[in-house]
Amino acid sequence: MANSFGHLFRITTWGESHGGGVGVVVDGCPPRLPLTEADIQPDLDRRRPGQSAIVTPRKEADTVEILSGTFEGLTLGTPIAMLVRNQDARPEAYSEMATKFRPSHADFTYTAKYGVRNWQGGGRTSARETIGRVAAGAIAKKILRAQFGVEVLACVQQVHHLSCVVDPETVQVAAIEANIVRCPDPTVAAAMIQLIEQMRSEGNSVGGIVTGVARGVPAGWGEPVFDRLEADLAKAMLSLPASRGFEIGSGFGSILMTGLEHNDPFRMQDGRVRTTTNRSGGIQGGISNGETIYFRVPFKPVATVMHEQETVDVHGHDTTLKGRGRHDPCVLPRAVPMVEAMTALVLVDHALRQRAQCG
Amino acid sequence: MANSFGHLFRITTWGESHGGGVGVVVDGCPPRLPLTEADIQPDLDRRRPGQSAIVTPRKEADTVEILSGTFEGLTLGTPIAMLVRNQDARPEAYSEMATKFRPSHADFTYTAKYGVRNWQGGGRTSARETIGRVAAGAIAKKILRAQFGVEVLACVQQVHHLSCVVDPETVQVAAIEANIVRCPDPTVAAAMIQLIEQMRSEGNSVGGIVTGVARGVPAGWGEPVFDRLEADLAKAMLSLPASRGFEIGSGFGSILMTGLEHNDPFRMQDGRVRTTTNRSGGIQGGISNGETIYFRVPFKPVATVMHEQETVDVHGHDTTLKGRGRHDPCVLPRAVPMVEAMTALVLVDHALRQRAQCG
Amino acid sequence: MANSFGHLFRITTWGESHGGGVGVVVDGCPPRLPLTEADIQPDLDRRRPGQSAIVTPRKEADTVEILSGTFEGLTLGTPIAMLVRNQDARPEAYSEMATKFRPSHADFTYTAKYGVRNWQGGGRTSARETIGRVAAGAIAKKILRAQFGVEVLACVQQVHHLSCVVDPETVQVAAIEANIVRCPDPTVAAAMIQLIEQMRSEGNSVGGIVTGVARGVPAGWGEPVFDRLEADLAKAMLSLPASRGFEIGSGFGSILMTGLEHNDPFRMQDGRVRTTTNRSGGIQGGISNGETIYFRVPFKPVATVMHEQETVDVHGHDTTLKGRGRHDPCVLPRAVPMVEAMTALVLVDHALRQRAQCG
Amino acid sequence: MANSFGHLFRITTWGESHGGGVGVVVDGCPPRLPLTEADIQPDLDRRRPGQSAIVTPRKEADTVEILSGTFEGLTLGTPIAMLVRNQDARPEAYSEMATKFRPSHADFTYTAKYGVRNWQGGGRTSARETIGRVAAGAIAKKILRAQFGVEVLACVQQVHHLSCVVDPETVQVAAIEANIVRCPDPTVAAAMIQLIEQMRSEGNSVGGIVTGVARGVPAGWGEPVFDRLEADLAKAMLSLPASRGFEIGSGFGSILMTGLEHNDPFRMQDGRVRTTTNRSGGIQGGISNGETIYFRVPFKPVATVMHEQETVDVHGHDTTLKGRGRHDPCVLPRAVPMVEAMTALVLVDHALRQRAQCG
Repeated sequence: MANSFGHLFRITTWGESHGGGVGVVVDGCPPRLPLTEADIQPDLDRRRPGQSAIVTPRKEADTVEILSGTFEGLTLGTPIAMLVRNQDARPEAYSEMATKFRPSHADFTYTAKYGVRNWQGGGRTSARETIGRVAAGAIAKKILRAQFGVEVLACVQQVHHLSCVVDPETVQVAAIEANIVRCPDPTVAAAMIQLIEQMRSEGNSVGGIVTGVARGVPAGWGEPVFDRLEADLAKAMLSLPASRGFEIGSGFGSILMTGLEHNDPFRMQDGRVRTTTNRSGGIQGGISNGETIYFRVPFKPVATVMHEQETVDVHGHDTTLKGRGRHDPCVLPRAVPMVEAMTALVLVDHALRQRAQCG
Repeated sequence: MANSFGHLFRITTWGESHGGGVGVVVDGCPPRLPLTEADIQPDLDRRRPGQSAIVTPRKEADTVEILSGTFEGLTLGTPIAMLVRNQDARPEAYSEMATKFRPSHADFTYTAKYGVRNWQGGGRTSARETIGRVAAGAIAKKILRAQFGVEVLACVQQVHHLSCVVDPETVQVAAIEANIVRCPDPTVAAAMIQLIEQMRSEGNSVGGIVTGVARGVPAGWGEPVFDRLEADLAKAMLSLPASRGFEIGSGFGSILMTGLEHNDPFRMQDGRVRTTTNRSGGIQGGISNGETIYFRVPFKPVATVMHEQETVDVHGHDTTLKGRGRHDPCVLPRAVPMVEAMTALVLVDHALRQRAQCG
Repeated sequence: MANSFGHLFRITTWGESHGGGVGVVVDGCPPRLPLTEADIQPDLDRRRPGQSAIVTPRKEADTVEILSGTFEGLTLGTPIAMLVRNQDARPEAYSEMATKFRPSHADFTYTAKYGVRNWQGGGRTSARETIGRVAAGAIAKKILRAQFGVEVLACVQQVHHLSCVVDPETVQVAAIEANIVRCPDPTVAAAMIQLIEQMRSEGNSVGGIVTGVARGVPAGWGEPVFDRLEADLAKAMLSLPASRGFEIGSGFGSILMTGLEHNDPFRMQDGRVRTTTNRSGGIQGGISNGETIYFRVPFKPVATVMHEQETVDVHGHDTTLKGRGRHDPCVLPRAVPMVEAMTALVLVDHALRQRAQCG
Repeated sequence: MANSFGHLFRITTWGESHGGGVGVVVDGCPPRLPLTEADIQPDLDRRRPGQSAIVTPRKEADTVEILSGTFEGLTLGTPIAMLVRNQDARPEAYSEMATKFRPSHADFTYTAKYGVRNWQGGGRTSARETIGRVAAGAIAKKILRAQFGVEVLACVQQVHHLSCVVDPETVQVAAIEANIVRCPDPTVAAAMIQLIEQMRSEGNSVGGIVTGVARGVPAGWGEPVFDRLEADLAKAMLSLPASRGFEIGSGFGSILMTGLEHNDPFRMQDGRVRTTTNRSGGIQGGISNGETIYFRVPFKPVATVMHEQETVDVHGHDTTLKGRGRHDPCVLPRAVPMVEAMTALVLVDHALRQRAQCG
């Protein structure tokens, strides 16, 4: 259960950073969808370490193999299992991790919970776990696009203090993918890249904000109470490594407005009920209202830094630990496909739920 | 499913604001816990409209009846059903709601989804739905306190621009409950009350931030991937009416720190592994680390205001609507027991999950 | 979880035989279905004690109240809560049950599991728990009939050694309801009634077989692996009190045939793929094939008999116990609406699942 | 969901008979359990085609690889993914299956449901799907044995008309595994083998009954209402290919006894509450009572026979089809490890549930 997500379009991820590999099983995919590895690999490449100068240099091809659930290029309606083999196992690089808890990593909490952990490369807490999510998300994005006309995208909106304005209605994938930091504003992107490179040279790290967008979602997706669309999105985002929060639409900023200022007026437009502002972020009462869905997710700076830090060891002694080996100064560019994947997974699930209950 | 929450300690709420009543079924409660209505009613009274001068004046006693699951004052391990009858039905006060969609309410989205809605008092979207959650949360809080030594509390930290500093380690229920706005700083509380009263006199509304706290959670609760403790908390909070976001620990503020500044160093203290700072908010890698858990939830200003607003009617015509009848200028004081309830429900569920898997 | 059934059309039952009442919450019902108590009560009356001379004389009106989920006679898509108050509490009739475990009842196992039990009238193990199922099943039957053209029925096919032939294709509700034992063959029914009356006079009890039938199920409902239609039906039937088994189609009888004899040949008929025999019972590979679904469920003789029986008490001493008070010589007639209800619940759930995944 | 089983110890199987392979993900396994492929492979070998003269000659080594969830020979508490590659792909042997529906197979129903199917070797309906279950079941059996002292076993009790008496209290694995049909009575086993060989020579097939046994289950496992232990076992058994029914304890035979004859008297024995007979099959009111659990499962004769049979093709024309290639005259010997696996999966799940709720 803990490793599954979704109700009708359910994924189960598995795998540690060191071991046979990582993967995912997708259950509940509609049948007769054209699907091959070529639909999956591009998003894995966007998630991959070593894709650019500003992300972790870990070398993994991350080539996906579809093991089941398709036949002659079409989905069968049966579970789609996907596997990515691990290749870059260098246990020696991490040997100190066997006995010392890395600060602000999950080494200690895993040990507290399970009494055992795979200390090589972070084990299950490694960002490699998200390979399964991104692979499944690529399928979800394809279904949304092909069957519901919904476009899901994400971009880096802020790195440390450097931020740009993102208009959810108009931001384009081409602008986002035009630079290695995945920020749609080229000037801000250049400054972000410079800051991240500085962090790398200093052995330090930096966080920021990813904005997620879904355009074309029809009115009526979501549920009224616990499984509100924004609640499922919040869970999805907070399940990503290093994310620290979530806000939908006006978010935290809503508290500086009065009700009179904040409400979104309804107006008829082209025969459809529309709102003239979109502070609701496309969701009202847990259910989509047909406007663009947008939200923001803060990611903390990566915990691994190339400096001596205070910590304790597994025997309960105070000690210090200095990060070694590969260094990822900023997770943001790689978080973009992760945010897209989780968004798409939430939306497809609710699309199927809507179809089930309301026909 | 959409109306259930939790995996092992699972609640299902039901009921509209007008109709036979509202309630909840709690499945998975441990047996032999002392429990009567007297354990539930106090939290319902804290959630109740009309409890003070600054909340909605709707008059409902909200008296709870335990229908099943207890015997001679002890829980049986079987489902605990609780019922609160509706009393204050005044359909005439809402008749315009039958044909017009209230801005930033869920009238339109429910209609889009279901093709039908109970327009009286908001139906299922009414805050009355949270009665079931608060009743179930009272049980969860009792289990946490009695069986795990965990204390859950919440308070109002900000209303519009008025904010106070809340120290999660030391904030006390007595200070929170000492005033009607449930802000632990008496000076700021007085200003908040004044602002809310002004909003009421202007027929306007205002939002703010509730801080949630859980003290005494042992290291090891939570799950590594999708059901991270912070992910389940985020979902729980975003499922509350009018909430717009969530941040754990350093939250959005983390993005202005570098990794070196942000990491929480480990140190041994009294034979336990502790962190000397708590930017992680008590959760690392989805699992509690034994430090105090704290998070913040923004609530937007209440959508119902006593002013003419632009909207459309069910026939697709532009029109206007002015809120009438009772007016709730600020949901924050009543949101406090809701945040506590949802926090406790998440924690109990993970406590049982931990016991199941790790013995 | 343990008290919920179904994935998309999910019911949660609650309540003990003594206490505030029993009830059910139905989550996932499609909106805009006409529904009032008048749709529910008839099946509750068929389940009710005291309805005829051959069932337990316990006097309960079992009047159902719909507490939520409908508005102006239509379902809202929100949870439908239904309540039946308990009336016939006579704790004195059961006082011996507080200290002695009734043989082949669940008194001992509940105590072993929970360390506590409501010993009055059997508590949660009472057949009163099935009120919630039958109420929910009435809704499920209505959906199947109105939206999918599916008819669900059940009948008593055997009581002890007295059996009749039931043709799943042709058996009619009118013939079943024409007598109090609910056996469609009037001659066998008369003998069954005589046998049950003899059992009553002897303070003894007798079991038998209920046949369940679903006609009009289209090809394509079900799932390939764990949630096969027959697997979900089997679970549904074995969840009924006193049921001891399940067989679909040819069932246990299939083992005396060879493959060549047992296979159902396909033939085209009226432009549809049909089978010329139906040993599969309408399900192949877990999925309906468009033929009539039929299965059989054995119910053991009721455990309460008016004779002294060996048992132990809660203090671990050997003793004896003699059943007193009301005596139900045969549960079969009242099991008929229970089997119908559980069948309908399984089918509606799969109908919605099919719609969700395959459009 | 449809491809997952279990609530706390949850498995998800995937894979078609032709394609990359088949496998399973096990979520919820307790940490620190010693586990390697050597714990899994023996049960896969018992399930494997070609293991003896009386089963299908399909040649597959079925070598399992553990891809995740263990480290240095211990389980981590994270998902255990296991993979078995497909090797014996001979699509040409099945080409007729692309256009004709095999009688009493799932070719037609899959097509009706999904509008597409992998016709090679039966795709997802192939018995190869059970590899994942048996692999997961081997882990479940190990947990039951090591942590709870529970022994799970199964045997062939009847083939067509040839049956032996199985005493659930005393039957031993050694006797069962002493012959290739897995019947503990050597004389009957010899006759069964002879009959199966005759069926093979005639190109026909035969079914029978598998008895499942669990010894050492403590009182208190199970749930009172929907998730009764016998209900979950029934679902588990009916989810196996070719199974047609289920009966617990006295089963269908209970209907020829009166209540007075059928009840199991309680007596104290060695300080424990015991029953002097065990018609309940070790389960009362859905919860284990500490006695041996036993049940019976009928398997129909294998549908593939080497004779011309009437059927229809995918274009809706009447035609005939004759089975070719490999022929499995009796699934019973290979069903034994499947029954064991599903039994163990149900029991482990309930063991963890009991621990979660009742401590």
